[in-house]
Amino acid sequence: MAQRPTMHDVAAKAGVSQAVVSLVLSGRYAGRASEATADRIREASADLGYRTNLQAKTLKTGVSEIIGLVGDDVATSPFSGQMIKGAQDRVWEDGNTLMTVDTGGDSLLEAAAIDTLLSHQVRGILYTAMYHKELEVPEAALETRTVALNARDLSGRIPSVVPDDETGGYEATRILLEAGHTRIGMINIFPGEGIPAARDRRRGYERALLEAGITPDPDLLIAGEGIHSSGQEGARALLGLADPATAIFCGNDRTALGAYQEIAAMGLSIPEDVSIVGYDDQDILRDYFHPGLTTVALPFLAMGERAAALVLDPAAPAETHAIPCPVIHRGSVAPPKGR
Amino acid sequence: MAQRPTMHDVAAKAGVSQAVVSLVLSGRYAGRASEATADRIREASADLGYRTNLQAKTLKTGVSEIIGLVGDDVATSPFSGQMIKGAQDRVWEDGNTLMTVDTGGDSLLEAAAIDTLLSHQVRGILYTAMYHKELEVPEAALETRTVALNARDLSGRIPSVVPDDETGGYEATRILLEAGHTRIGMINIFPGEGIPAARDRRRGYERALLEAGITPDPDLLIAGEGIHSSGQEGARALLGLADPATAIFCGNDRTALGAYQEIAAMGLSIPEDVSIVGYDDQDILRDYFHPGLTTVALPFLAMGERAAALVLDPAAPAETHAIPCPVIHRGSVAPPKGR
Repeated sequence: MAQRPTMHDVAAKAGVSQAVVSLVLSGRYAGRASEATADRIREASADLGYRTNLQAKTLKTGVSEIIGLVGDDVATSPFSGQMIKGAQDRVWEDGNTLMTVDTGGDSLLEAAAIDTLLSHQVRGILYTAMYHKELEVPEAALETRTVALNARDLSGRIPSVVPDDETGGYEATRILLEAGHTRIGMINIFPGEGIPAARDRRRGYERALLEAGITPDPDLLIAGEGIHSSGQEGARALLGLADPATAIFCGNDRTALGAYQEIAAMGLSIPEDVSIVGYDDQDILRDYFHPGLTTVALPFLAMGERAAALVLDPAAPAETHAIPCPVIHRGSVAPPKGR
Repeated sequence: MAQRPTMHDVAAKAGVSQAVVSLVLSGRYAGRASEATADRIREASADLGYRTNLQAKTLKTGVSEIIGLVGDDVATSPFSGQMIKGAQDRVWEDGNTLMTVDTGGDSLLEAAAIDTLLSHQVRGILYTAMYHKELEVPEAALETRTVALNARDLSGRIPSVVPDDETGGYEATRILLEAGHTRIGMINIFPGEGIPAARDRRRGYERALLEAGITPDPDLLIAGEGIHSSGQEGARALLGLADPATAIFCGNDRTALGAYQEIAAMGLSIPEDVSIVGYDDQDILRDYFHPGLTTVALPFLAMGERAAALVLDPAAPAETHAIPCPVIHRGSVAPPKGR
């Protein structure tokens, strides 16, 4: 092709509008174009040899700037993927490359990784926790622009991006209140205040109850561990009370799946006998819920995108960005029996 | 602490032998020490401020050499973790840092990532597929030492590390033959020859049958898609034959879980009425099998370690390393009924 291909050519080849091509090639299409459409556009773009200006710049110099992502357990967490994808899509939009180092939580490796990234003059670092944490980012990382991702930096010196677990817990509980439940149990993923996700989801649960004029009943709050057996044991305890729960907010989907199995084993049905709401909207478990689980999604893609935007913007203030956790309505909530 | 701590000090603090400390700190402990022990040793090491010589060298210069891992879909694959961990443990042993770039399969991003890694003079690249593939590594990657990981390089110019899916399929089928089954179905994860994992697992299945004097029956081979519904539909088809299967080799664990649910829905029991063997040994599904699933594990940790060792060894020849897939015996296999 003699003439340099244009965005119009890509749009024509992919059978979409130029606006969609622009969104997809700049990585901002989440929620606005399907993955299938995005794939078709990328294919058309690659076939035609189309380059955006920034990509052309990167490809011309042969080198893009590096944004480092230092994660504490990327390799073994099934959660991390969308966070990395969101960050990557956003840094690539400006012609940067995201390079991830997994430290496995090892402080020696973390120190060496940060030093190595700094020596290669990275443009910035996303200091990333695989589970929502509160922490102090190491001093060395502050030599470049650093953003805490899925973690709140307690020093308050850098921007932080976290999921809004408190509002998520509140909304999960609201769904059950609005269906007419008043005996709403919670099986949490960790006891006490140590884990921000557990602490904040519980706070949201209690706030929703109090707003509805219901005093939280300690018998209805089960301190689980976020695993399958927590859901089984928790459901058994909550449904075995003298005044049993009619609905259960499970602190994560794994717990919810345990609750589903226990409830089935007790000969009860969801949502006819018991309503359930989960948390996480974990892909790989989704198929195994019958009926589909109403749950609250962790906004990992949006969190990754936001953190990347913040690391690329030297003027962004050192604030905490709490990203909303959207409710996913499926089939596990109904009014309590006899209503 | 005035005196520099020794490996003996770490061993004493962690309550283990010096040999175990050495294995753990050099990352070669897989199968020889538990993760709990390794954690205890790392903690003791960090508490005491102990440094191995290589780590000390890295930390002294402040910079370690980079090994790049270019992956086609790291962020969204639940599979990739152990491969990255294995590679990382091995490169860190020699004081290198592994930096991962996820290209999402986008050839533009891949080209930019490889150029960027080369411009930072990486010591080598692990060109990694998230699902076992056969491919041609891009020319640019051959400017440094590159190893194909979970992928066989068809050009034969570089070392490749792949799982031995053929032997895995063979051994999965052998388990069922040895239990006395002769009507052994297979629900594959992809039809035809396009996907090496599907092709090789099926070849192993057929080889085991032929060796046992059984001609593969086309009715017993179901071309699934590796998803939950493939297991449900496949089990229904295989158990509904005039001469039904008494055992099923499922091409992956997701399929096996679908088969479990269908078999339960039919009022049949595993392993009393039907024996099942899976493939992958996927962590996150493990809890949901009752009884536990006998399956074949993908040796991701070992594959990552091997590929890293090969990228660090400039003398390693351009061979394909097929890493054995170990059989994990649990509770889903028994002799056929009436035996």
